[in-house]
Amino acid sequence: MADRYVRVKTTQGQVYYGLLELNQAVKVLSTAPWLGGEPNGELLAPDTYQLLYPCEPSKIVAVGKNYSAHAAEMGGEVPKEPIIFLKPTTTLISPDAEIALPPQSKRVEYEGELALVIGERCFNLTPNQAIAAIWGYTIANDVTARDLQRSDSQWTRGKGFDTFCPLGPWIVREINPSAMLQTFVNESKKPVQSAAIDEMVFSPDYIVSYISQIMTLLPGDIVITGTPEGVGPIQEGDRVYIEIEGIGKLQNTVILREPLPIEVDPEESEIN
Amino acid sequence: MADRYVRVKTTQGQVYYGLLELNQAVKVLSTAPWLGGEPNGELLAPDTYQLLYPCEPSKIVAVGKNYSAHAAEMGGEVPKEPIIFLKPTTTLISPDAEIALPPQSKRVEYEGELALVIGERCFNLTPNQAIAAIWGYTIANDVTARDLQRSDSQWTRGKGFDTFCPLGPWIVREINPSAMLQTFVNESKKPVQSAAIDEMVFSPDYIVSYISQIMTLLPGDIVITGTPEGVGPIQEGDRVYIEIEGIGKLQNTVILREPLPIEVDPEESEIN
Repeated sequence: MADRYVRVKTTQGQVYYGLLELNQAVKVLSTAPWLGGEPNGELLAPDTYQLLYPCEPSKIVAVGKNYSAHAAEMGGEVPKEPIIFLKPTTTLISPDAEIALPPQSKRVEYEGELALVIGERCFNLTPNQAIAAIWGYTIANDVTARDLQRSDSQWTRGKGFDTFCPLGPWIVREINPSAMLQTFVNESKKPVQSAAIDEMVFSPDYIVSYISQIMTLLPGDIVITGTPEGVGPIQEGDRVYIEIEGIGKLQNTVILREPLPIEVDPEESEIN
Repeated sequence: MADRYVRVKTTQGQVYYGLLELNQAVKVLSTAPWLGGEPNGELLAPDTYQLLYPCEPSKIVAVGKNYSAHAAEMGGEVPKEPIIFLKPTTTLISPDAEIALPPQSKRVEYEGELALVIGERCFNLTPNQAIAAIWGYTIANDVTARDLQRSDSQWTRGKGFDTFCPLGPWIVREINPSAMLQTFVNESKKPVQSAAIDEMVFSPDYIVSYISQIMTLLPGDIVITGTPEGVGPIQEGDRVYIEIEGIGKLQNTVILREPLPIEVDPEESEIN
């Protein structure tokens, strides 16, 4: 099995990067592995830690409509250039943490995606140079308030609620280019999403090159590469499983968020 | 004169938060003032430091079309709710630093804006609660590649290039609600933008409340509140001055960015 790089919080509250062993013990690393972290001799026994989202990005860059069948189900065509957008880092949640449905939305949907972990500071890369900047791979759920995504011109609100980016459970260095991505809701045997990651319109190296020609990417930054066909709604109490062959399975449960503090009434906001 | 909170880099390369004295000396603070930083007794003499952008946000949340005359000049109406979008933190540059025009755009424009500095971790605030979460005020230039903003459905690329968020020169705690915002390009006496900040459609407290109902805001985060009428292009060699009464003046020069590393050809990117 490939090395699995994790970030964990111990029952004492300490946070470490680490290597997950086959017996579920964690070899502690001195720092993030893409910053040169090495095993420091400490070992965490199984059941003495919980998994956190596996890196601490300064930004999450996402790509829209990057599988042609999904572009079609969204009522659009495959874009000529990548459509990029940002999710705030406050969307991040850990494996097994809860996705909170906000009261502003009537329809929140899962979107299973391959996530790229950037290993170095980089700017203005060619696709070939971008290959080396991708340190590893993990799984993301680009949770989306579909009604707000459709009603707003910008996707920031629909994609930007707290808890809308489950990430993990760990990072691997290599991935089979034709690995399958599958999403399951609850205990159904049949996946709601199922596609090979090489069905992407724009490949990971092309995407990272494209983004790097706009903005500097930093070590630990995350690029999520778009979702395949089969997006659909999630409800309170649902459990969502996103599995990518050669990585593992990201699991999260769905809850309702607390209500809004006030009635939002833009009319009342005017200063004059 | 109101207290002016700065972030500086000394000629020895150390970075501090500080208070700018009338004689241009800087009283060093132990940490960011919104985190409880206090003067530690150190004083930096004038000419031994340079000003940096005055905080280190985890995110920059921006509001579109928040002055009705600007919404009209962009060919649109005032939105019913704030249009929010994100600029990556890699857009930040300091007072006097250079805005770099990217080769992908044929038309880059200045946008003078009032920036709000968030002082505490906050979520789901009412507008009244939001007033207390706004620690202070500074000036931002929401630099925009207008052609790419218009051609892309999402504004992330057009608003997200490195150097596209000059911020500063310092933070003040209070602002007159009817303070004037004026933008000048080069040595013209006549401002290209001139509006009172209370001409905003959605007020600072309403905006912060609205954003906080979507995403948690963190200490040092920046909210930029939209630009008034009069946006226009900048060229290599231009100097842009944005002045807000009671804060000061943010000045930056415009240069050309390095060329792209390759011809961007999406056709070549397909895996299959």
